[in-house]
Amino acid sequence: MTKIQLYDTTLRDGMQGEGMSLSAQEKLRVAHRLDELGIALIEAGFPSSNPKELELFELLGRERFGQAEVAAFGMTRRRGVAADHDPALRVLADCFAPVCTLVGKTWRLHLEKVLKVDGEENLRMIEESVAFLVAEGKRVVYDAEHFFDGFASDPEYAVRCLSVAAAAGAETVVCCDTNGGTLPDQVGLAMASVVEAAGLVGVRVGIHCHDDAGCGVANSLAAVHRGATHVQGTMNGYGERCGNANLVSIIPNLQLKLGYECLTAEQLGALTPAAHFLDELLNFTPDPDQPYVGRNAFAHKGGMHVAGIAADPATFEHIDPAVVGNRREVLISELSGKGTVHARAREAGIALDDPAAARVVERVKELEHRGYHYEAAGGSFELLLRRETGEYDPLFRLESWRAIVEKRADGRVETEATIKIWVDGERYVRTAEGNGPVNALDRALRDALVEIHPHLADIDLVNFKVRILDEAKGTGAITRVLLDASDGDQVWGSIGVSENVIEASWEALVDSLEYGMQVAGLAARPVRGTGSGS
Amino acid sequence: MTKIQLYDTTLRDGMQGEGMSLSAQEKLRVAHRLDELGIALIEAGFPSSNPKELELFELLGRERFGQAEVAAFGMTRRRGVAADHDPALRVLADCFAPVCTLVGKTWRLHLEKVLKVDGEENLRMIEESVAFLVAEGKRVVYDAEHFFDGFASDPEYAVRCLSVAAAAGAETVVCCDTNGGTLPDQVGLAMASVVEAAGLVGVRVGIHCHDDAGCGVANSLAAVHRGATHVQGTMNGYGERCGNANLVSIIPNLQLKLGYECLTAEQLGALTPAAHFLDELLNFTPDPDQPYVGRNAFAHKGGMHVAGIAADPATFEHIDPAVVGNRREVLISELSGKGTVHARAREAGIALDDPAAARVVERVKELEHRGYHYEAAGGSFELLLRRETGEYDPLFRLESWRAIVEKRADGRVETEATIKIWVDGERYVRTAEGNGPVNALDRALRDALVEIHPHLADIDLVNFKVRILDEAKGTGAITRVLLDASDGDQVWGSIGVSENVIEASWEALVDSLEYGMQVAGLAARPVRGTGSGS
Repeated sequence: MTKIQLYDTTLRDGMQGEGMSLSAQEKLRVAHRLDELGIALIEAGFPSSNPKELELFELLGRERFGQAEVAAFGMTRRRGVAADHDPALRVLADCFAPVCTLVGKTWRLHLEKVLKVDGEENLRMIEESVAFLVAEGKRVVYDAEHFFDGFASDPEYAVRCLSVAAAAGAETVVCCDTNGGTLPDQVGLAMASVVEAAGLVGVRVGIHCHDDAGCGVANSLAAVHRGATHVQGTMNGYGERCGNANLVSIIPNLQLKLGYECLTAEQLGALTPAAHFLDELLNFTPDPDQPYVGRNAFAHKGGMHVAGIAADPATFEHIDPAVVGNRREVLISELSGKGTVHARAREAGIALDDPAAARVVERVKELEHRGYHYEAAGGSFELLLRRETGEYDPLFRLESWRAIVEKRADGRVETEATIKIWVDGERYVRTAEGNGPVNALDRALRDALVEIHPHLADIDLVNFKVRILDEAKGTGAITRVLLDASDGDQVWGSIGVSENVIEASWEALVDSLEYGMQVAGLAARPVRGTGSGS
Repeated sequence: MTKIQLYDTTLRDGMQGEGMSLSAQEKLRVAHRLDELGIALIEAGFPSSNPKELELFELLGRERFGQAEVAAFGMTRRRGVAADHDPALRVLADCFAPVCTLVGKTWRLHLEKVLKVDGEENLRMIEESVAFLVAEGKRVVYDAEHFFDGFASDPEYAVRCLSVAAAAGAETVVCCDTNGGTLPDQVGLAMASVVEAAGLVGVRVGIHCHDDAGCGVANSLAAVHRGATHVQGTMNGYGERCGNANLVSIIPNLQLKLGYECLTAEQLGALTPAAHFLDELLNFTPDPDQPYVGRNAFAHKGGMHVAGIAADPATFEHIDPAVVGNRREVLISELSGKGTVHARAREAGIALDDPAAARVVERVKELEHRGYHYEAAGGSFELLLRRETGEYDPLFRLESWRAIVEKRADGRVETEATIKIWVDGERYVRTAEGNGPVNALDRALRDALVEIHPHLADIDLVNFKVRILDEAKGTGAITRVLLDASDGDQVWGSIGVSENVIEASWEALVDSLEYGMQVAGLAARPVRGTGSGS
């Protein structure tokens, strides 16, 4: 079984994506997570392009990893400067990283229009830069920028750029689809020429793709199919424009479907939590539709699917979700029956007898008719199950609440909410201001409850969606509010529906706190709600 | 140049995706947009699985399309029932659609575990169902469910399922990767067998993929490369689990990179607005990183990229973004150029000099930075133009407003709003109740203004959308409200943005009434706002 060397560039190329921002300490956490996942090489950036990168390299240099190695990233020497006098190459030579990745030009269009050097000088820049770092004791990965565009216009020259790097001692030469527009057949053809090239026998060949044509994953697979054994990409496909090739899809495709060895079975089983860890750290909502690891990736709707899965999961699942650390989801919908409710109750560890399950089905039907929708509100659905069993112990009893929003004569908007609730026979009245009515209600409610339930302080509202159900009715329409909450570890969804947007928000807010306390009260049981992001 | 038949299943398979919800009227708008885009076949669903579908088919049957045809969707006959006695096939035969798409089984695992019929009976079910609809005058597309899984386990039988459908008169046979786990090389190999099969000569072969392995686009391309000329998919890749194959990526890949003919150049140039129209209608935030149409798809960071682009855009762009209706840059705004502003002003009959147009551009940039977005808010944009010319005469001057929502101890929710405004030197104070805070504000405001402007009574709010812009911030995020209003004749959109949902709604509400009065004052000039529902 061919072993594939995984090279993650989340911390360098991935950080070019919109909204990507991590401190040096956070990058260190990412590096450890990638190491645990089984990534061989972690590209961390240029060791001194700014103080943050410098701090990161200092941190990384003191760190121990299980098996991952850190790669520093830089460019070939400047035109007209000797490699050993190029300050950036010197920085690379002096940094602790055992591996240096050098990027250089391959495409004549760039030589002419951007770099403004001739082809021979570019080859010397590649050769001397690689040779310098090898002489300084580094292992070198050579990234051939715009390789496929270069190959399309001048294949002989493009391959020569790689051969020169290999001859100078590069351990790996990487074909990069920098602009991301190449398609799988083109990648496959070019790669076949590369691995057969005279100067590249015995040299490891790699691939680096982007997703501008929606083919980043398939391009990487096509390259491996033709002999590449080093695959560069980012977690969750982060990166500029349309993103880099997504390692989270590439890895299971290679390992589960094409027979390559990427990770141990145990490491592969940690793929889903690792992918979600990155999203959480970057403050992104995990894409529910992401291949392999999304919460919808193995979601089933409707009776026939559920019956097929019961007969044989292979009927409707392309892989066993547990193999990548994901799980099957049975979606609650108008079509769902008692069997689905039983299945969900079992997953949540709730003992539900048959009459209770039948009542839940009726109740869900009635609620869905009124605009509820539990697909993305697993927390609320589990509370509904618990309420039906009588197991349910509400956090408080509501007496009343009031929210006031006022646009004052001076143009300022003031928001204030008051709640009156009862807990254990005691009455709590609290008022809070907020930047909106829901925010103010949330603050007032927590202000009262956090004295009794300190864990509530750990729960954040991470996602708030408002949908008007019968839009044709204008402002008199039904409003559905979906809230995602998190305690830093797990994510759950809740729902509220009302003609009144504030009432709908209140309902979702209460469910999300109630469910959060249920989770806390149930030790480390994994959250099984459909809305769970774990 | 081979012409590819595009088949869109957004309205059927796409609607299986999480959070997908459209009224029959909205689906009609989608169908028209797909028709304008140049889609050949629009799959609309089963003509009577519920009242909403029935209504949709009634609406579609009365409609005229430029070139698109509507396909109704159903299954092969039930086991043990003659095709002409199968009620569902009868519904298909009786519906107006000229094309019927039938799905049937191909994979022995499903025959055994799910359908529980033997292979020969399944072939008869396919043959008789297709023959029945052909005899009823329909053109039939046959969708072979789980084709690639079936082909992997029993290639001879899988191909026979297609041949039987073709022999019975199907115009097109489609290989479906229903579970979505097949990879491009496997699709290519299977498709090569299909197009060469003895019983399929002269029959159009199609492909239907899902994105469970992150290869939905590449799989579709691989099939076309091997001879498929009919491609099924959804706009923006909507669909259950990880989504269907994304037509928005497939179309430009086929047309711009592989030399197939899908759309006219003009239609291709409308791809980006069409993709965003679907997202807006479904209340999804358009994916900024989407290939070809995302606002980041041609975004450039850093000086070298910008310099390269200046020298030759091909250095850093895989295609010219204008070809798919997209544009270069980081911050994309439909209205950011002076030329666009002048064009819009001319359409609205507003005389705008060059310095005023420049001021509008600056103002729009600033407002878009704060979360405004005028694509669906043509009314607000026209007001912005009028305010800049000094032509603008506001309906009233606001002193203050206040909205109170109260959940009382008896469980009832009471909502009340008070407004204080000035019109022509006179102060109006009005209080109204409503079923929500925006409704109450609307009533109070109209109560005051309708005495002076009786036409306001004719304006209805017909559509109300709320989007949280930075969802990761929970209830403290920025809220964007889009309102569509109508005077029974014309529809216009307005926008409000604020941290506070009530303030954002108020702003949109005022714009929609102000604009409505402008329209009334300007005779029967057609409304040209992008948000127009016409």
